[in-house]
Amino acid sequence: MSRALELAQRGPSHGPNPRVGCVLLARDGSIVGEGWHRGAGTAHAEVAALADARERGADPHGATAVVTLEPCNHTGRTGPCSQALLDAGVTRVVVSVEDPNPAAAGGVARLRAGGVDVVTGLDVEHGRAVLRTWLAAVGRGRPFVTLKLATSLDGRVAAADGTSRWITSEVARRHAHELRAQVDAIAVGTTTALVDDPSLTARNAAGELHEHQPLRVVVGLRDLPAGGRLHGPGGELLHLRTHDPAAVLAELHAREVRHVLVEGGATLAAAFLRARLVDEVHAYVAPVLLGSGAPAVADLGVTTIGDALRLTPTSVLPLGPDVLVVATPRHEELH
Amino acid sequence: MSRALELAQRGPSHGPNPRVGCVLLARDGSIVGEGWHRGAGTAHAEVAALADARERGADPHGATAVVTLEPCNHTGRTGPCSQALLDAGVTRVVVSVEDPNPAAAGGVARLRAGGVDVVTGLDVEHGRAVLRTWLAAVGRGRPFVTLKLATSLDGRVAAADGTSRWITSEVARRHAHELRAQVDAIAVGTTTALVDDPSLTARNAAGELHEHQPLRVVVGLRDLPAGGRLHGPGGELLHLRTHDPAAVLAELHAREVRHVLVEGGATLAAAFLRARLVDEVHAYVAPVLLGSGAPAVADLGVTTIGDALRLTPTSVLPLGPDVLVVATPRHEELH
Ligand SMILES: NC(=O)c1ccc[n+]([C@@H]2O[C@H](COP(=O)([O-])OP(=O)(O)OC[C@H]3O[C@@H](n4cnc5c(N)ncnc54)[C@H](OP(=O)(O)O)[C@@H]3O)[C@@H](O)[C@H]2O)c1
Ligand SMILES: NC(=O)c1ccc[n+]([C@@H]2O[C@H](COP(=O)([O-])OP(=O)(O)OC[C@H]3O[C@@H](n4cnc5c(N)ncnc54)[C@H](OP(=O)(O)O)[C@@H]3O)[C@@H](O)[C@H]2O)c1
Repeated sequence: MSRALELAQRGPSHGPNPRVGCVLLARDGSIVGEGWHRGAGTAHAEVAALADARERGADPHGATAVVTLEPCNHTGRTGPCSQALLDAGVTRVVVSVEDPNPAAAGGVARLRAGGVDVVTGLDVEHGRAVLRTWLAAVGRGRPFVTLKLATSLDGRVAAADGTSRWITSEVARRHAHELRAQVDAIAVGTTTALVDDPSLTARNAAGELHEHQPLRVVVGLRDLPAGGRLHGPGGELLHLRTHDPAAVLAELHAREVRHVLVEGGATLAAAFLRARLVDEVHAYVAPVLLGSGAPAVADLGVTTIGDALRLTPTSVLPLGPDVLVVATPRHEELH
Repeated sequence: MSRALELAQRGPSHGPNPRVGCVLLARDGSIVGEGWHRGAGTAHAEVAALADARERGADPHGATAVVTLEPCNHTGRTGPCSQALLDAGVTRVVVSVEDPNPAAAGGVARLRAGGVDVVTGLDVEHGRAVLRTWLAAVGRGRPFVTLKLATSLDGRVAAADGTSRWITSEVARRHAHELRAQVDAIAVGTTTALVDDPSLTARNAAGELHEHQPLRVVVGLRDLPAGGRLHGPGGELLHLRTHDPAAVLAELHAREVRHVLVEGGATLAAAFLRARLVDEVHAYVAPVLLGSGAPAVADLGVTTIGDALRLTPTSVLPLGPDVLVVATPRHEELH
C-alpha cells in the first residue's frame, strides 16, 4: 500500500478527481503492474495499472489489486474501475480509503458481488492524508477552503498608504506560489482586485507560469476594469457578484473546484471566517512591524477574549526570515 | 574555557554584575579550583576559584587561571581580581572576553605589568553569547531592552472589550515568566497598569514567586491607585512620570538595571521602537483570530511599506500551540 500511495502522489493535487495509485501483485507477491491517475480525462489508476501489466506481458488473472481509494462504480469520462478489475480476472482487492462520493461509491459491493475478496481500511490514515482536501470537499459537498494571510508581526497586511509589496520574503512568496499551483481556484475581494491589480497566477522561482493555472475568482459587486493583470495570462477569470461565501462555494463546487485558496483582503477573509467556511489557515508571519495599516482580518463579531476564534496549529515552518503557521479553526468555539 | 563558561552560567543572569566563571589549572593541566560569580555582593569568580583551591589544599602558585571575562581592576564590593590573582602567584591567565566597562577594565594590563602571561579572546563568540545582554548594556551605557508582545495571529493584544486573558497558552506564559525571572526590571505604560491590574511578578509553574523579582516600572503621568496587584508581593515598584523612553533607561541605568523587559501596551512599545531603543523583540504569536481589539504596537510613523521596521529573526520556537519569534530590529531602516 505504501507503494500505491507513492504512486497516488505522482498525480496532480488540483483537479476534480482524487489522486489514486494502484499496484497489481501476482500470486507470488511480485509487482506486475502499476498505475496512477494523471488528472481529469485520463485513465483511472486501476485501468492504468491493468494496461501497464498488459504492456509488461503479464496476465492480471488471479492478481491482487492494491488501491488507495475504493475503485469507482460509475461511468464518467472512463468506465467503472470495479468492472475493469472484474473483467481482468483480479481475485483480491485491497483498499485504503472507501469512497465518500455517492456517485462513485459502490465499487466494493460490485467487486464482492463478482466474487472478489475485498479488504478495506489498510493504512487508512496515510491514505486519508493523501486525499485530505479532496475527501473534505466531497464529504462537505463544497470546495476545501484554505485562507492565506501574509502579515507583519503586528498583524498588518499593508502599510498606511496601502502598499503591501512586500511584507514577506521571497522564500515565503515562492512557497505561496507552490500552493497556488496545487489549488483549483484563488479568490479575492473586489477591493484587493481593484487596489492591488494582482495577477493571481501560479509562478515558479523564475517568474514563469506553472502549467496548471488556478481559476481566478473575484468576489464583490463592483465592476472590474477592462485592463489589469487579472485579464493577462493565467487561469480563467470568474467574477462572482455576491457577498455570500456559501454562494461562492456553491458556484465553485458546480465547476468541480475541490480546493480554493482565499487570499484576502480582510473583508473577504472575515466573511469566510464568520460563515465558518474556512478549513485551514496558512499564515505567513514576517518579522516586520508596521504600527498602522490594513489589518489581516476585518471584524469577526468577537467582542471578548472568551469568544476568540481559536485554531489548532498543524505545522510551524520557518521560511527564510518568516514563519508559516498552518492551523485549523475550531469552529465550534466561534459564537 | 568551555568549563569556565559552564560555571559562568550557574550565576544569575539578572543583577548589575556579569556572569563570570573561572577555572584554575595546575602545571600538569589538572583542575585545582573552580569558581563563579553568584550575584552582587558575593565573591567574584576568580576569588571564588582561589578560595576553592585553598579549600582543596591546592597551592595556586604557578597555576593558570582560565576566566570568561577580563579580571576586574577596580575595588567595588570586592577587591580587584587582577590583584588577587597576582597575590596568589598565578603565572598565566587565559581570558575569553575583554571588559568593555571602563571602571573595571585594566585587569589585563595590571596582570601583564605583574609579569603574568595573559592571552585574551579564547572562545570569544561563546564568551560574548553568555554575556550578551550585560555587554550590550555596559557598551551602550543603558539597559538592554527586550520588547515582549503576546499577540493573536492577526496582531491583536486584547479583544474589543479590553479582555486579554488569555491569548497565549499556558506553555507560552510559563516561558515568559522564566524571562521575567532573568531580567532586572519590567516596564508597562500607565494604561496597562490601570486597565489590566497586572502583578508584574516572576512566578513558577505552581504560581509561586521566584526568589528574584524584577523591579516593577510603570511609565506615564497619571497616578496609580493605592490598591492593586502592583503593590502586592513582588519587586519594588517604580513609577516614572515621563513619556521619554531615554529618560526611563537613564533612570534604570542609574539603578544598575542591565536588562529591562518592556511588556506593553501598544503606546509604550511604539515609543521605545520609535526611539530606536529596542534591542530585541520577543513575539509570542498565538493561533487565535480576533478581527478587532487593541493592536500590539501603536503608530510607528511608518506610512509606506518601504519604511517598515524590519527585524532579523534569531530564533523561532514553537511553545505548545503558540510560536515565539525572537528578532532584532534593524534600526538603520526605520526612517
Ligand atoms: N498581504 C496580503 O496577504 C494581502 C492579501 C490580499 C489583500 N491585501 C490587502 O488587503 C486590502 C484589501 O482588503 P479589504 O478588506 O479592503 O478588501 P477585500 O476583502 O479585498 O474586498 C472587500 C470588498 O469585497 C466585496 N465583498 C465580497 N464579499 C463581501 C462580504 N461578505 N461583505 C462585504 N463585502 C464583500 C465588497 O466590495 P463590493 O462593493 O464590490 O461588493 C468589499 O468592499 C488591500 O490593502 C490589500 O493590499 C493584503
Ligand atoms: N497581550 C499583551 O502582551 C499585553 C501586554 C500589555 C498590555 N496589553 C494591552 O494593551 C492595552 C494598553 O495599551 P495602551 O497602548 O493603551 O497603553 P500603554 O502603552 O500601557 O500605556 C499608555 C499610557 O502610558 C503613558 N505613556 C508612557 N509613555 C508614553 C509615550 N511615550 N507616549 C504617550 N504616552 C505614554 C501615557 O499615559 P499618561 O497619560 O499616564 O502619561 C499613555 O496613555 C490594554 O488593552 C492591555 O490589555 C496587552
